[in-house]
Amino acid sequence: MTEAYKFIDADVHNEQDDSALLPYLSEPWRSRVQTTGIGYSGSGYYSPVGVMKRDSIPPNGGKAGSDPDFMIKQLVEGYNIEYAILTGVVYNISSTHDPDYAAVICSAYNDYLINEWLGKHPAFKGAMAVSTLDPLLAAKEIDRVGGHPDIVQVIISSAARAPLGQRMYHPIYEAAQRNGLPLAIHPGAEGGGSSTAPTAAGYPTRYIEWHTCLSQMFMAHLVNMVCEGVFVKFPGLKVVLTEGGVAWLAPLMWRLDKNYKALRSTVPWLKKLPSEYIRDHCYFTTQPIEEPANPQHLIDLFNMMDAENMILFSSDYPHWDFDSPHMILQKLKPEARRKIFHENAKQLYRL
Amino acid sequence: MTEAYKFIDADVHNEQDDSALLPYLSEPWRSRVQTTGIGYSGSGYYSPVGVMKRDSIPPNGGKAGSDPDFMIKQLVEGYNIEYAILTGVVYNISSTHDPDYAAVICSAYNDYLINEWLGKHPAFKGAMAVSTLDPLLAAKEIDRVGGHPDIVQVIISSAARAPLGQRMYHPIYEAAQRNGLPLAIHPGAEGGGSSTAPTAAGYPTRYIEWHTCLSQMFMAHLVNMVCEGVFVKFPGLKVVLTEGGVAWLAPLMWRLDKNYKALRSTVPWLKKLPSEYIRDHCYFTTQPIEEPANPQHLIDLFNMMDAENMILFSSDYPHWDFDSPHMILQKLKPEARRKIFHENAKQLYRL
Repeated sequence: MTEAYKFIDADVHNEQDDSALLPYLSEPWRSRVQTTGIGYSGSGYYSPVGVMKRDSIPPNGGKAGSDPDFMIKQLVEGYNIEYAILTGVVYNISSTHDPDYAAVICSAYNDYLINEWLGKHPAFKGAMAVSTLDPLLAAKEIDRVGGHPDIVQVIISSAARAPLGQRMYHPIYEAAQRNGLPLAIHPGAEGGGSSTAPTAAGYPTRYIEWHTCLSQMFMAHLVNMVCEGVFVKFPGLKVVLTEGGVAWLAPLMWRLDKNYKALRSTVPWLKKLPSEYIRDHCYFTTQPIEEPANPQHLIDLFNMMDAENMILFSSDYPHWDFDSPHMILQKLKPEARRKIFHENAKQLYRL
Repeated sequence: MTEAYKFIDADVHNEQDDSALLPYLSEPWRSRVQTTGIGYSGSGYYSPVGVMKRDSIPPNGGKAGSDPDFMIKQLVEGYNIEYAILTGVVYNISSTHDPDYAAVICSAYNDYLINEWLGKHPAFKGAMAVSTLDPLLAAKEIDRVGGHPDIVQVIISSAARAPLGQRMYHPIYEAAQRNGLPLAIHPGAEGGGSSTAPTAAGYPTRYIEWHTCLSQMFMAHLVNMVCEGVFVKFPGLKVVLTEGGVAWLAPLMWRLDKNYKALRSTVPWLKKLPSEYIRDHCYFTTQPIEEPANPQHLIDLFNMMDAENMILFSSDYPHWDFDSPHMILQKLKPEARRKIFHENAKQLYRL
């Protein structure tokens, strides 16, 4: 398929050795990272296929995603990407325990991102990381670096202590709105450290289950954000549910709208159907896209929820389940394809 | 719509005052219930529309669902029900803490069910309750009363301490298979007592969210049961996911099958796609059915997953969100309707 436009990739993971943040850290944090590394809380689930796309190790032998020049060559030029939203991995720090430390790591990363990535290529746009452990510190950080012209998004972890509609998190949304930045929510540390169990029923046994059930985190956050009135309180806020799946959204909206009709007295601040708030405020990235045996089924489901206006293409480069823009969603009509692979992100991120 | 068959209702909640179980309890349990009631762990969420259908209070003023004669008149005769699977509410005891107490309450209820309901009308068939807190005691109870001719199902709570595929629960499945009984999983106590939080992201704020997110519990249990090989180990086992929704199943199967293709090395006991185990072993009851703005969307989604062989009609009588068999799924084709409202349950329960 040949398009008249380049792609916009809404989820590209730049990586770095922990030591890359040292120049951006002051004591006592610098010594901590120097001696014991950043110390993320792992989820405890093992992927037998690894985490990284095998061919994404840069020529210098460093981590996949750590070499801007190689990323430009392999992803940006290799797949005709006009803009790559660099999402990093540092949002995962929210599943540790010390709110000051988590905030400091995010700040160091944001400075590193601005200094060592965002100027390297016009395609690179940045998602600044904040921790949900102290929302007031997160809001301060958004005000500190959110005005940088190449920062186009705030990113937080979907692995949290509570559903993200809870009021303690609202200062983050207020700051994102104030700075005109969409807020991305990204999985990765579900079940690790201070975060909740990765499924409603608790801890499953294996990575295949953890990965399959990741969508539950997004369902729960979304329902809670809508019902707690986040989009009423912050009418300018846009939320990007990144890497959490898409197909579950239609059944969830049906169920939530039905329940709203019976139970609306408990959420009187909502002035329209829950699904209308979702349509007006939320975006969903494609990777990892659900793949029915009959690909037309996914397109049919998209059409049921008018999904073409809510979906952003993402590759998840350089992770193992990378989706090539040439391979996925081939049955989309050209107009829907143009929106999902280019136009929606262009408008959302004001590119 | 006039059918040539009567309906089979797979989820009918008979209720009783706690004191109704006293004749079936020995000491010290009898005194406990007499002085402080059964003592379920409530979920802590408040329904502004109540829990019971307003017109279901029997003439004697007792609890909705507590009078067999009134249930016969209102439900069985009123809605042309050939068989009503009596599911009770006692499965909720699993979210308390003492495994001996939970087992004793289930046994008392099962005796009460057999003595005071099952002989009252040929439509009444019983789901015997067991607690998941001690699976070996549960298996003993299944062997004790599972052979009764009017007991057609074992029922457990979806609110549990862990995903229900975990090996500690397998004695329950072995006993259900040994007794030729399907196993129903039913929600109600999610987030109460010893059970996990009601969503993957933790505790939402309100009942509308709790009710909307209930499906997550079923998704997680189902994924875990399939991946832990429950249906390989117990090839005769049938599982009925009761009152957990239906529409989410298609997207979940797509996601799980896709992940299986990449990650099957970690579940080598599976010999076919996860969705094939689900199709061969699982049933889903209709109430509360998802209701898209365009009802045809639900039928289209059903067709994508060949749902007509996996779905059982249920009313959830006498609960507030009761579904009348005359009102739901009107766009089904006659053949699918016959299966869902009659044939599937007839075969499953050997009626």
